[in-house]
Amino acid sequence: MKNFEFANPTKILFGKDQIQKLSTEIPQDAKVLMLYGGGSIKKNGIYEKVTKALSGHEVLEFGGIPANPEYDILMKALKIIKDEQITFMLAVGGGSVIDGVKFLSSAALYEGDEPWDILAKRIRTFKGLPFGTVLTLPATGSEMNSGSVITRAETKEKLAMGGPGLFPVFSVLDPTVVTSIPERQLANGLADAFTHVLEQYMTYPAGAMLQDRLAESILQTLIEVAPQIMKNPADYQAAANFMWSCTMALNGLIQKGVPTDWAIHMMGHELTALYGIDHARTLAIIAESHYTYNFESKKEKLAQYAERVWRVTDGSLEEKAKAGIAQTTAFYQSLGIKTKLSEYTDQYPGTAAEVARRLKEHGMTGLGEHGTLAPTDAEKIVEMAY
Amino acid sequence: MKNFEFANPTKILFGKDQIQKLSTEIPQDAKVLMLYGGGSIKKNGIYEKVTKALSGHEVLEFGGIPANPEYDILMKALKIIKDEQITFMLAVGGGSVIDGVKFLSSAALYEGDEPWDILAKRIRTFKGLPFGTVLTLPATGSEMNSGSVITRAETKEKLAMGGPGLFPVFSVLDPTVVTSIPERQLANGLADAFTHVLEQYMTYPAGAMLQDRLAESILQTLIEVAPQIMKNPADYQAAANFMWSCTMALNGLIQKGVPTDWAIHMMGHELTALYGIDHARTLAIIAESHYTYNFESKKEKLAQYAERVWRVTDGSLEEKAKAGIAQTTAFYQSLGIKTKLSEYTDQYPGTAAEVARRLKEHGMTGLGEHGTLAPTDAEKIVEMAY
Repeated sequence: MKNFEFANPTKILFGKDQIQKLSTEIPQDAKVLMLYGGGSIKKNGIYEKVTKALSGHEVLEFGGIPANPEYDILMKALKIIKDEQITFMLAVGGGSVIDGVKFLSSAALYEGDEPWDILAKRIRTFKGLPFGTVLTLPATGSEMNSGSVITRAETKEKLAMGGPGLFPVFSVLDPTVVTSIPERQLANGLADAFTHVLEQYMTYPAGAMLQDRLAESILQTLIEVAPQIMKNPADYQAAANFMWSCTMALNGLIQKGVPTDWAIHMMGHELTALYGIDHARTLAIIAESHYTYNFESKKEKLAQYAERVWRVTDGSLEEKAKAGIAQTTAFYQSLGIKTKLSEYTDQYPGTAAEVARRLKEHGMTGLGEHGTLAPTDAEKIVEMAY
Repeated sequence: MKNFEFANPTKILFGKDQIQKLSTEIPQDAKVLMLYGGGSIKKNGIYEKVTKALSGHEVLEFGGIPANPEYDILMKALKIIKDEQITFMLAVGGGSVIDGVKFLSSAALYEGDEPWDILAKRIRTFKGLPFGTVLTLPATGSEMNSGSVITRAETKEKLAMGGPGLFPVFSVLDPTVVTSIPERQLANGLADAFTHVLEQYMTYPAGAMLQDRLAESILQTLIEVAPQIMKNPADYQAAANFMWSCTMALNGLIQKGVPTDWAIHMMGHELTALYGIDHARTLAIIAESHYTYNFESKKEKLAQYAERVWRVTDGSLEEKAKAGIAQTTAFYQSLGIKTKLSEYTDQYPGTAAEVARRLKEHGMTGLGEHGTLAPTDAEKIVEMAY
C-alpha cells in the first residue's frame, strides 16, 4: 500500500425529502446564486422543491449551464457573482453543473487577470467561494469531490482543475430524482461510475487488499442494479444504490494508497472535445482497446477483477484477464452503449493522430499508472477503438 | 436504504514516516498538550519521533491514561488544560487515549459545573477543543470518528459520549507501529474491528447493497490479514491493511443507510466494567449467544455473511446462517481469544442478572436493531455465554 492523505469534508444528505434541509444547511444571511442546466429541473419538480426550501433566503438564479460546462457561459455567471456580491452558490444538476460551479467557486476568489489560467496553468484552489449541491443525475461523483472538468468550445479544449478548496459544503442526494432521468443519461451514469472505479483499480497489484475489495464492491453493486435501473428507474432501492455507488466511485476513498490510471479519461476527453460524444460513451469506446494494449502490465488485476467481480472461475490467468475485458465491453453494451468510435462518427479516420497531437499539446505525454504511455501509444489505442 | 447524513472531516495521514507532518499539521502558534498511555511509546520509538516533529512547538505532556480511560485521571489532565490554557491536544496512543482526549476536548469547553454530566446526561458535543491523533494500536476506529467511551472505576460505570465536534482534526496512521504491539493487543484489535463491522451489518436486509458489500470487504480483509499479523506483525502490507480496515470499520461510512445493532457492545461494556475483561474479548464472549438468541430476526443476514464472507455454499438458509455463527466463533478462537465468560472468571454465576440490572439502570431497555431487546433478554444472552 502506498502512503496517502485523505480528507473529505463534504456533508452528504441522502434520501427522500432531504431537499427540505437546504433551508438550514445554507447560512441564513447568505446571498445565494442558484445555478442549473437546461431547465429539466423545471419539468421534474426539483426546481419547485428547491425554491420552496430556499424561500427564507435571498436567491438569484443562473440557468443554462450545458453538458460539458462551457467557459464562456460560466464567465457570464462569474460577472453576476461579482456584481451581486454572491456569498454562497447552490448547484442544482448533474456533474456538468456542479463542475461549472466549482470553476466559479475558484474563479470568484481568483486574483489573477485571466480565470482561464486556473485551467491552462493548472492552478490548484485552496480556498473557494462556498457552495452546496443538489444532485439530479448520478454519474460523475462531483458532488463529493474537489475536481472539475471545464470545456472551451472556441478552442475545442476540455481541461481539469481542482484543489482542497473545492469540496462542496454539502450535497443533497435524493434517489427519487432518478425516476425522471432519460434512459440515455441513466446508461451514461452507470457507465461513467463503472469506469471511474476501473480507472482507480485496473492497474497492478499494490498490496491494497481493502481498497481492492471496496472498488470491487462498487463494481458489483453497479452490475447488480444496472438492469433494474434501466428497466424501472422508479425502483427506489435500485436508484439509492446506484446513486450512492456513483458518489463512492469518485469521492477519493478508493484511490487512496493505490496507483491510478486515468488514461481512458484523458483520451476520452479529447473525443468529447472533437466530436461532442457523451463523456461516458467515450470511456466505453476507449476501455477495451486500452486494456488490450496494456494487457501485460494489467493482466494480474484484470484476472482478479474477472474472478471476484464477474465470477470467472475457469482458465489461466491470461484467459481470465481476457474474460474480464470482454465482460467489461459486454457491460457497456448491455446498457445500450456502443463501444466503437466508428459507431458514433464517420469522421473517425485520422482521429487517433489528432488525439495524440492534442495530448502532446496539453503536456499529457506520460499517461497511465506508470506514467509511460506516450502520445504515440494513445494513437495506437484510439486506432484500435475505431 | 434508509435516509442518512454523513460527514467526516478528519484528515488521514497514512503510511511510513507520516509522523513528521505533525510539524505542519498542528498550528504553529498552538500551545499543545500531548497525551499518552502507560509509556510504551517511550520504548518503541514513537515518543521520540513525535517530540522531534514537535520541536518547533510549545508542548506539555500528560502520560498515564489507562486502558478504559478513567474519569478521575482525565480530570487531572483537564486541570492542566485549563490552568495552562492549552489550545490543541495531541493524542498518541490507541482507542483509550484517543477516547480520553475526546472527553477532554468536550470537557475543556463545557460550561456546566460537572463534566461527568456529559456522559451521565448524554450531552452531545458540537464544538470541542481541537485535537489530532497519532494511532499506536489499530482497533477501535476512534481515530476517525466522533465517539468515545469513558470509564469511572469508582462506580464501575462505562458510558458513551460523542457529537460532531469530536472528530480529530487529523490522524496519523503509520502501519510500522504494529511491529511493536504485543500479541494480545493484536488479537484484540482484530476482534474489535471485526465485531464493529458485525454490529453494523448483522441485522436484517435493508436494501443497502453497497453498504453490505463494503462491510463484507472489511470482514474479508481482516480474515485474510489476521493470520499474517499474528505470525509477523512486521509484515508491512498486512499491517497497513489491518490498520486501514480498523479505521474504515468505524468511521461512520458503513453504518449509513442501514439499521445497526450494538447490543453486543452494550452487554460487553458491562462485562469490562464488572471484571476488567479486555473490551474486544467481551465482544467475542457475547457474539455467539447474541446471534443464536436472535437467530430468527438475523438469519437472512447471517446466511448472506456465511455465503459471501466465508464462502459457505451448501445447505439451507438456516444451515448457512448457523455456519456463519460458527465461523465467527472460530475466527475469535483462531486469534487465541476465549469465547466463554467462565474462561475469564470464576465469578460468572449471577453475572447475567447483574448485567441486566445495570443495563436497566443505564436506561438501556431496548437494545438491538429493532430496539426490542429488554434487560431480561440480555440476561438470557449473557447466561448463554457462560
